[in-house]
Formats: sequence, C-alpha cells, structure tokens
Amino acid sequence: MTTASLIALDWGTSSLRAYRLGPGGRVLDRLHLPWGIMHLPPAPDGTADAAPDRGFERAFDAACGAWLRDEPELPVIACGMVGSAQGWREAAYLDLPTRLDGLARRLVRVDRGDRAPVHIVPGLIERDGLPNVMRGEETQVAGVLAALPADLVADGDVLVCLPGTHCKWVSVQAAEVGHFDTFMTGEVYAALRGHTILGRTMRDAGAPDEAAFARGLAVAGSEAGRMGPLSTIFSSRTLGLTGTLAGTAQADYLSGLLIGHEVAAVAAALAREDRRPRIVLCGDAGLCGRYAQALRRHGLGEPTLTEQATERGLWQIAVDAGLVRD
Amino acid sequence: MTTASLIALDWGTSSLRAYRLGPGGRVLDRLHLPWGIMHLPPAPDGTADAAPDRGFERAFDAACGAWLRDEPELPVIACGMVGSAQGWREAAYLDLPTRLDGLARRLVRVDRGDRAPVHIVPGLIERDGLPNVMRGEETQVAGVLAALPADLVADGDVLVCLPGTHCKWVSVQAAEVGHFDTFMTGEVYAALRGHTILGRTMRDAGAPDEAAFARGLAVAGSEAGRMGPLSTIFSSRTLGLTGTLAGTAQADYLSGLLIGHEVAAVAAALAREDRRPRIVLCGDAGLCGRYAQALRRHGLGEPTLTEQATERGLWQIAVDAGLVRD
Repeated sequence: MTTASLIALDWGTSSLRAYRLGPGGRVLDRLHLPWGIMHLPPAPDGTADAAPDRGFERAFDAACGAWLRDEPELPVIACGMVGSAQGWREAAYLDLPTRLDGLARRLVRVDRGDRAPVHIVPGLIERDGLPNVMRGEETQVAGVLAALPADLVADGDVLVCLPGTHCKWVSVQAAEVGHFDTFMTGEVYAALRGHTILGRTMRDAGAPDEAAFARGLAVAGSEAGRMGPLSTIFSSRTLGLTGTLAGTAQADYLSGLLIGHEVAAVAAALAREDRRPRIVLCGDAGLCGRYAQALRRHGLGEPTLTEQATERGLWQIAVDAGLVRD
Repeated sequence: MTTASLIALDWGTSSLRAYRLGPGGRVLDRLHLPWGIMHLPPAPDGTADAAPDRGFERAFDAACGAWLRDEPELPVIACGMVGSAQGWREAAYLDLPTRLDGLARRLVRVDRGDRAPVHIVPGLIERDGLPNVMRGEETQVAGVLAALPADLVADGDVLVCLPGTHCKWVSVQAAEVGHFDTFMTGEVYAALRGHTILGRTMRDAGAPDEAAFARGLAVAGSEAGRMGPLSTIFSSRTLGLTGTLAGTAQADYLSGLLIGHEVAAVAAALAREDRRPRIVLCGDAGLCGRYAQALRRHGLGEPTLTEQATERGLWQIAVDAGLVRD
C-alpha cells in the first residue's frame, strides 16, 4: 500500500466523503458513506448516546478507521457542515473580505485523546447587505483557485459558480473573496416538483430532455421572463394544458426556467458592475453542462470546468496549515 | 322565507360555496362545504360510483338540495374548476381578448332530466406568448367590473389583482380583457415553508408580524432584491443565523419578499408600457392589505378594495345570459 499523507473529509448534512491522499494530494482511496451530520450511524446496541460525540466517532471510524489503524500518525482535515453548530465542533465563520489562505489559520481542532485529532475548516460569512454563509464551498473555491494559473488568481477577476441545492457564486478578485451570492435553485426546483401543482402533470422522462431545458432557458431570457420565476413557472402547467409541452418534458423545462432566471440575474449584476470575470464551474457534470449553456446564452463566454475541487482544496488548506508538506 | 332569484355556486378544487341570491343579487343564504371537485362526498354505502356524475350530484344536493325543494324553478349557475376537464362538465375556455359579457353566451348546461339544469361559466385562456388560464377568477373580475363606475370600465384602464394561491393580475382596457398574468406566489410560499430548509427555523408567530412583512417587502425592492427571489429567500435563513430575524418573524418576512418581488415585476411591466391603471384588489382581507402595502411602496397608488366579487359576478353573468332579470 502506498504511504498516505493526509486524510481529508467532506462532511455534509446528508453524506460523508472520505479521501486518503498521497504526496501532492493524489487521491489513493475514496469512500462515500451516508453518514451526514444529520444521519449519523446509530449505536450498535440501539441505545441513545450519552454524549453527542459518539455518533460522530462512529461515522469517523467507518470512514477512515482502517486507514488510521495502518498509519496512525496521518493528519486529518474536514470541511462542511461538520463545523456547524449542529456538527462535531463549531468552527466560527471567517468574515469577508478574506484571502482563502486565511482558512488554514482558523482551523478548529477536535482533540480525541491519544487518537488522531481532526482539523475542521471554518465556513465563510458575508455580513454586509443581506448576510450570506457557506460551509464546504469555501474549500471547493480554494481547490478551484489552486487549479487556476497563479497570475490569474493573483491579479484577475474570477467568479466561481458551484451549482447544486444551494448554488453559490463566489467573486475572487486579486485573490480575495469579496462577495458571494446564494441561489436556492436546486432546492426550489425539488420543492416545486414535489409539492406544488406543477409536479402533478410531470412524467418521468427516463433521460434528460435537453430540448425542454433549452426551451425553459429561452423563456427565462425572453420578454415573458421579465415577470420573474414566480410567474414563468406556471407556464410549465399551461404549456402542458395547451398540448405544447409533454408531461415528460415539464421537469427539464422547469429546470431551464429556474437556471435561466438565476444566470440572467447574475449576468445583469455583472453588467451593472461592468465586470467580465473568468467564470469557473465546479460540481455535478450534467448540472455544470446546463449552467454552461445558460452562461453562453447570456453572453458570459465559455466557462472553465473544474473537478475534484474539494479534495484539492482540503489538500491546499492542509498545506497552508502545515499539516502536510506539498 | 324571501323568494330567491338564483342559486350561484363557486365550485373549486377543494371547496364549494353556495349562494341563494334574491332580487338584485342580494345574498339571502350562503353555505360553505368541503366538497371541492377533488373531494366529492363518498357514496353513503361506501361503494364506488358507477358514473362520475354521482359524486357531483351528492355535493350539489348537499349544497342546494333544500333550496331547490322549496323553489324547484330557480336557475342555477356555477363557476370554477367544476368546468374543468376534471369537473362535472368541461366548459371550453374563452379566448382573449374578450369582453366579459361573452361569458354568458358560452355557458355550458348540465342537463339533469326533470331537475334544475346547472349552467357552468367557462374560464379564460390567453394563447399568445406564454399561455395562461383561469377558472373562477373570470367571474370575480366580472363582479369587480360590475361594482366599478360604468364609464371607468367602458373607457378606462383597470388592473384587477386577485391574490391567493395563484395570484392573477387581469388587465381590462375599455371593457376588454386583453391580458393577464399568474404568479404562483401563495403556493410557492407554502412549498418553501413546508418543504425547504427555510421552514426548519421558522416558528409560529401566533399573530401576523407586520414589521417582518414590511422588512421582506423592503428587501425585495432594494438593490439586493435585484438578484431575484431564488436568491433573496435564502436571507430568511441567514438573517436568522446572524441573530437579526427571529424564528417567529421568518414566515412573514418570506411572505414580504415574495409579494414584494411579484409587485415589483408588475410595477416594472406597467412602467415599460407607460400605463397607470386603476388597480382593484379582491380576495382575503389580510392578504389584500399586504398587496396594498406593496402597491403603495412601488408607487402604484391606493388600490380599490372589492368584496363579494364572485357572488356579484355570478349574478351579472346570469343576468347577461337571461337566466334572471336584474
């Protein structure tokens, strides 16, 4: 077995991803477990835990106990909701504006007696205007920046888009994170689909209907789209009623509408600020493809796609913190 | 018992409102039953109905059987989802643009042998651009217009706003309905509250928190509001996290955000068209008060409030159709 350098955990609300990283941050092993902080493994005898740490310990052991038994001195770093008030230890948010190398100076250490301590990465908070928070995405952004040309990060204007349940758009100008926005697009889509009249006429398509997605995108960017998503979403139903949008096309059409409205809002904000940042997309490949399509449609150019940003970000932060040597 | 002139039914998806109207459309009796077209009363012996009409007949009898036994010759008119494909009889939509006296010429008659026939009011459809439909609201608009000064309706520009699950904004210019918009604001609010992370930190306030509502309204109309509702709604959570919005204030804050975005979109559309219509609000008093506040905030003036529009509209359509004499 190759000797490892770091154990890195991406520990969110609903799942736990563990990475065994070798020299240079190369991924040697990976594990995906369902033990998110809100779904920790129960005690083997079914009793309630005396201390809340117990559930975290069991999940931790399931994820990397075997790796640590082989190499007990490996440093461990973790990001995500594990650092929230409901997590293993709360890691106070880092305030914006900030450079991301500041994350390494604010790691929160979970001491575990004679066993390996866990270092938790703090999230970011923007307090100006409407407050905004992230936990986990700051590490993805650190990974994205580590993969970009150093001079672009040092001097340039980068906008990192992280599609998902809560899509984040993070502005990094001259290496400093100055602002970010959150769009609840993924979660709103699921709520509309599962819990409104729009879902009732939707039928499973079997495969993604990209034409329906493109149609929704076009509508959001059209004159009719100016009424906003609260209005345009009703057309998923009415186009069905008038026989011009099949039930199997309605879900992807709705996805196109919502992503279209989101990207239109971002494009308008960039135009107001006269910014033309390099846009980097990071996340699920299919979803990133849809965002890339929306970005092109709004004249925002061809985005850069990045993968494995979390692993790379955790490695970078561990290097910055001196837990490992690069 | 005063002699009645008309039985009028407002028959929607989830409830049935029945009115016994006297001369001039005066309400003599009213009944509110849970027998919407998707919740018809079951057969007394619990068996499945051989014909779908049976459930409608039972609901109808529960609503106005006694009134018709006293006065079997009373004409009966009904509006709402009872005229949909899932209703008692489908009443084909009337196309826009149209004057609302056209509704009376397109009533669909449910023949019931030797018993009183039921006349069902058609809905409206707009096919240009994104299609839009209504069933029931056309009757409310007819009732609103009947309550306005005749010269305002004949020559003026009226915008009727019907807040609710699906809020309708109906443009009536020189007595003709030319366009309407639907905003799913009420249903989106319920889905966000019940089925997203936003609901998890909300606490029951006991009474409406009007300050929180006004705050949401202000945010939607602010610079931050330009990112649109998919983004601003996340602040219901983050303002809670940062300790500046109590759990008991979050639901009304969210309501303010959504209604604020809706009214901002309508205000912007009116500005683009250089229109300054007389705005009439009709619906639940509390909700209409909130919309009125949003309208004032966006410089749209003091709206007219109308009540009992459905009863008045059903009466007006029955008069137009010659079912009763005014």
